[in-house]
Amino acid sequence: MAKKRVASRKKKVVKQSNRGGAKKTKTKSPRASVKVSTKERKTLAELITMADQVVHAAGRRRDPHLDIPTRSLSNVKFNRRKRFIEMGKNTNRRMLFNLSQAKSYMQTMLVGSGCKQLIEQGKNTSIRGLYYMLKHTIEGTKENTFEEQSDCDPVIEDVEVLLGTLREELHLYADKRGEMVGNLQLEDNGDLIDCARMGSGGYGIPSIVEPNVINFKKCTAKFVLHVEKGTVWQRFNEDKFWKKHNCILTHGAGQPPRGVRRLLNRMHNELNLPIFCLLDNDPWGYYIYSVIKQGSINLAYESQRMAIPKARFIGLRSKDYDRCKLSPSVRIDLNDNDRKRARQIAGYPWFEHKKAWQKEINMMLKNDFKLEVEALISKDISYVTEQYVPDRLKDGDWLD
Amino acid sequence: MAKKRVASRKKKVVKQSNRGGAKKTKTKSPRASVKVSTKERKTLAELITMADQVVHAAGRRRDPHLDIPTRSLSNVKFNRRKRFIEMGKNTNRRMLFNLSQAKSYMQTMLVGSGCKQLIEQGKNTSIRGLYYMLKHTIEGTKENTFEEQSDCDPVIEDVEVLLGTLREELHLYADKRGEMVGNLQLEDNGDLIDCARMGSGGYGIPSIVEPNVINFKKCTAKFVLHVEKGTVWQRFNEDKFWKKHNCILTHGAGQPPRGVRRLLNRMHNELNLPIFCLLDNDPWGYYIYSVIKQGSINLAYESQRMAIPKARFIGLRSKDYDRCKLSPSVRIDLNDNDRKRARQIAGYPWFEHKKAWQKEINMMLKNDFKLEVEALISKDISYVTEQYVPDRLKDGDWLD
Repeated sequence: MAKKRVASRKKKVVKQSNRGGAKKTKTKSPRASVKVSTKERKTLAELITMADQVVHAAGRRRDPHLDIPTRSLSNVKFNRRKRFIEMGKNTNRRMLFNLSQAKSYMQTMLVGSGCKQLIEQGKNTSIRGLYYMLKHTIEGTKENTFEEQSDCDPVIEDVEVLLGTLREELHLYADKRGEMVGNLQLEDNGDLIDCARMGSGGYGIPSIVEPNVINFKKCTAKFVLHVEKGTVWQRFNEDKFWKKHNCILTHGAGQPPRGVRRLLNRMHNELNLPIFCLLDNDPWGYYIYSVIKQGSINLAYESQRMAIPKARFIGLRSKDYDRCKLSPSVRIDLNDNDRKRARQIAGYPWFEHKKAWQKEINMMLKNDFKLEVEALISKDISYVTEQYVPDRLKDGDWLD
Repeated sequence: MAKKRVASRKKKVVKQSNRGGAKKTKTKSPRASVKVSTKERKTLAELITMADQVVHAAGRRRDPHLDIPTRSLSNVKFNRRKRFIEMGKNTNRRMLFNLSQAKSYMQTMLVGSGCKQLIEQGKNTSIRGLYYMLKHTIEGTKENTFEEQSDCDPVIEDVEVLLGTLREELHLYADKRGEMVGNLQLEDNGDLIDCARMGSGGYGIPSIVEPNVINFKKCTAKFVLHVEKGTVWQRFNEDKFWKKHNCILTHGAGQPPRGVRRLLNRMHNELNLPIFCLLDNDPWGYYIYSVIKQGSINLAYESQRMAIPKARFIGLRSKDYDRCKLSPSVRIDLNDNDRKRARQIAGYPWFEHKKAWQKEINMMLKNDFKLEVEALISKDISYVTEQYVPDRLKDGDWLD
């Protein structure tokens, strides 16, 4: 009886509430005019296989289910050989004919069908956009497919891990942040972008930087300098650091968004460029470096496409207070949360066995203060671009 | 006696703590190689006049003081003719020989001297950068020139109003956000930027867009469409809306930063382009519009250079729920804060006498829900670019 009720509910998911009249336009077949890449064809095939499983299961009189890789800390491990975080092999079974799983099973299928539609239409949207695209009240009930965006987001991640694909390949984009200038020419949707001629504004790094959008054309740069903050990036761009040192200059407005991380990863792997990260001497700076380098624990499945195990930390160091003879006034006292975070980070498997990192973090804890990159301005406005970074590069003095 | 102590303290402000040894490099005269524009020369002259007042006052055996225009709601009014917020004529006197004002007097001078140095060096920095530049421990004391950035920021605003200048003219930049594409070519620091060839990423709008940095070259666009969010901007760019409708497309990642507002203002005034703002149907969307249009109450003195009284609201309307036959599932219930903010905004002098705006806000309150631009995705992913905005433009259906 319970099974029957759930099954009849599922049917209705496919139908739309009457109000959303124009929804019909979504089902028009736009395949004819849209160019689908080989990679997209593969993703489409996987989405279709996911749906076909329902039919197959029904044909064999079995309960339809999905085995979704577990996205939890317990199923995440640090691969010492590859040097990034990856997911283990644990999965959770999600069944259609199980009252507590039926809704999320159907939501998973709904997200899959939404992404299929996006790829077929050759369009991208935000995760909020997909949420609105799929949200509707199920006819004859007061039940919504999703109540909040927070219901939809984990299901998107489920589909990503299930298909082993990045959300960008499912045509979903994040909010974009971060800019780039430097000795690199690239093609973005057919437009040739010369990052050496982008003035003070720079090229806004897109959120989807997969090869169907972005292709590298000509690169004479020898490395990438990634800085934490837009204001610091402006200093480096104004001083034409990238021209003097023949490099590419990026920032990610804090924790870099996915587009920036993926672009750094592609520049590192495809253009063979070392990535130097200029970050603050504080737990947040360490954490940003950790995510760029090894991937984030929450999204371990994307590490392979995002992480840069060889990224180098050229940010402020605990010894810089003495080395650069900084004024006591630029010190920022650590608070309890800083100390706690610092100890956590020191315990990460990829920092745990690194003497230099242990020394670095211990010295910060001993100092009991942190230092921002901007603190160097107290020496001279261009000290960071004319002395600090050039000296570190010349001496090979960085952490990795 | 009190006077004497304060005076001797002031002297020391000029000296640096010994640790910040490299500070001396800041005092080198870089004028020779730096091109200073006429406008910058004027700002420099004003900064010097500000400092000279100390000498003049001393010569006349008077107490040095500054009369700083009052930056408070009581000294702000809506100019009905010019149609933006402006400051009144009230000032506060800040005296050197007054124990409670001496520190802020000296901080004001310090900020003035920092900005003079930036202009002379031809360099810009962030307000955080200026804070670090000026922060030091006064020799022989434990007194810092500034404890926190929040001590420095209001002093920067004081100097702005005192000299009637924008902080960008004092060579201070904000964090930059927002991107632009469209039928506009401009020169940015000598690089020619063609905003029609910026791919999916776009041109990152600089935080300083004054004529010494940005010059408009060729513009065939007929209007500017400014959207609230980066994700919506991506939709419009992907659908090449700016190409089809011959316009310029900008976003400001929420409340647009100063660079974006100033650029919109310059495009409106210098290129005679109408500015259409596509914002959410909620109090936050109304407020963003209000700031773009009339300026912000906090920073009323900058309205003349920032505000666009003729900006038009083409954002979502309360009537759109019925007009566009939206699904009930896309409604977001108002909360108490929304209701309060909506009533506040309805009472703003520039909305107070506008029937259309009163009707709009009342209808939102009556609906008791708000609508995001993304809600239109529930109709079709490109409904907003292919139908909603084109229809509003064709029918001249906007608020202003």
